[in-house]
Amino acid sequence: MFDCIIVGSGLAAISAALTLKANAKSFLMIGEKNLSDKISKAEEIHNYPAFLGVSGTAFAELLKTQLENEEIVVTQGRVNGVYAMKEKFAVTTQDGGMYESKTVILACGVESGKRIKGEQEFLGRGVSYCATCDGALYKNKKIAVVCLAKKFEHEAKYLSEIAEKTYLFPLYKGLDLSGEKIEKIIKMPSEIVGEKRVKGVLYEEKGEAKHLNVDGVFILKEGLPPDSIAFGVETDGVSVKTDRRMQTNLKGCFACGDITGRPYQYAKAVGEGNVAAHSVVEYLNEK
Amino acid sequence: MFDCIIVGSGLAAISAALTLKANAKSFLMIGEKNLSDKISKAEEIHNYPAFLGVSGTAFAELLKTQLENEEIVVTQGRVNGVYAMKEKFAVTTQDGGMYESKTVILACGVESGKRIKGEQEFLGRGVSYCATCDGALYKNKKIAVVCLAKKFEHEAKYLSEIAEKTYLFPLYKGLDLSGEKIEKIIKMPSEIVGEKRVKGVLYEEKGEAKHLNVDGVFILKEGLPPDSIAFGVETDGVSVKTDRRMQTNLKGCFACGDITGRPYQYAKAVGEGNVAAHSVVEYLNEK
Repeated sequence: MFDCIIVGSGLAAISAALTLKANAKSFLMIGEKNLSDKISKAEEIHNYPAFLGVSGTAFAELLKTQLENEEIVVTQGRVNGVYAMKEKFAVTTQDGGMYESKTVILACGVESGKRIKGEQEFLGRGVSYCATCDGALYKNKKIAVVCLAKKFEHEAKYLSEIAEKTYLFPLYKGLDLSGEKIEKIIKMPSEIVGEKRVKGVLYEEKGEAKHLNVDGVFILKEGLPPDSIAFGVETDGVSVKTDRRMQTNLKGCFACGDITGRPYQYAKAVGEGNVAAHSVVEYLNEK
Repeated sequence: MFDCIIVGSGLAAISAALTLKANAKSFLMIGEKNLSDKISKAEEIHNYPAFLGVSGTAFAELLKTQLENEEIVVTQGRVNGVYAMKEKFAVTTQDGGMYESKTVILACGVESGKRIKGEQEFLGRGVSYCATCDGALYKNKKIAVVCLAKKFEHEAKYLSEIAEKTYLFPLYKGLDLSGEKIEKIIKMPSEIVGEKRVKGVLYEEKGEAKHLNVDGVFILKEGLPPDSIAFGVETDGVSVKTDRRMQTNLKGCFACGDITGRPYQYAKAVGEGNVAAHSVVEYLNEK
């Protein structure tokens, strides 16, 4: 069992990892081996102390070298479940991984895009964020797939092969996916409707409301609602609530970086990651 | 009137300054032109993301270059008073400077040394942290001077020239100050005593309590109790209390870095400085 699992691989996660390492704690860091897109995509970084207008790409390279020097490895994966159990946590990934730890640091960034009306209400009742987890449930059924980024296109493809019919809402440019069973709709869905479970998706076209009968809605996006990952965590809109020590309402579960709210800044992420790691160390020492 | 006065020149202060600059706010940063000692004295910095084991001296040089590039100037001075007035703040320095601003960021580090019993009780009633401010009051009187660092020796010298008799408690090695009117005591004072005002200082020698009659006690140290600088600011022991936005109990007065408590880390200081500056920007925009 790990002392800590860090969910994410952005600056907050890296800051936490460096400090846990310095404190000789065992941990698993689950995210993108190539680190967060947000780092390398930054144009120029001006208000991070001691960095003199370095580019995002250069910054990302420095971080990778630092992780290598400190022998910190990112485990490639996407966490889809953090379960607070008695005295420990179980953490699951979309590809079926399952890990245990004494503490968790949520550092997986802010939820991307605006939530669709009904998204939260029907989560787990027809709405899913994970193609590999829930895809098989929709064999020969009708689904809607809302795809927010090119990087999730392969998941949309996978789903379209399982389902009888896929209504694909690509919310980015450069879609490269088509097929007999796929109908593309270049719109943002306005609502997910149903009763006990999802029954349909609405969108507007030329001022007219359109309704599609579907059994499920997959929303493929980068940042997920925090409470859809960490069950029972207290949120404030899209952000996880923490105290000044980065402790969430779940004992042993800390959060840092964009997931805790504005300002969405490197410096804030770095500071909060550091504090979260120190709080983990303190928490483990108290036990 | 400045949009903001930043009290301090450590990492929290620098981080706040960079972000205020990026947001085109006018500000004064009062501290050490040579930046905080704590930066250059660090042996090696390992858990500051994207810094690969750089030395404290190299780190300090990078910060100085960055401030120059961004045309941020540190005003040399030591703040000894922050007064919350209606809709603005008055900030005074030990050398008699007086400035006004719409907001204040306290980033002057953590109080150094343990407080002496009675220190807080008699502050302003015989206990002083400032030789130049209060020295003249002790002409031909007896004083005790507790000097915590070499850098304050010139203040001790100045006081000893005014007073009739100076009991000097040097709490560092390499004292280079003597004189007819100076009596050195290589001990830590155990208590400051008096009634309405200071009447004496106690210390222990060979298990025996010694008492010295004095009219005043000067404590010359780096980090001062936050509430002795910012009047009315709410503290929790040695730290200033803030919320997650770094707002103190005084509206428009924010705090960041070591002054807000543990962990005393560069990363935390940088993060909090950034957040404090964003809160200042938000506060100014709301007005």
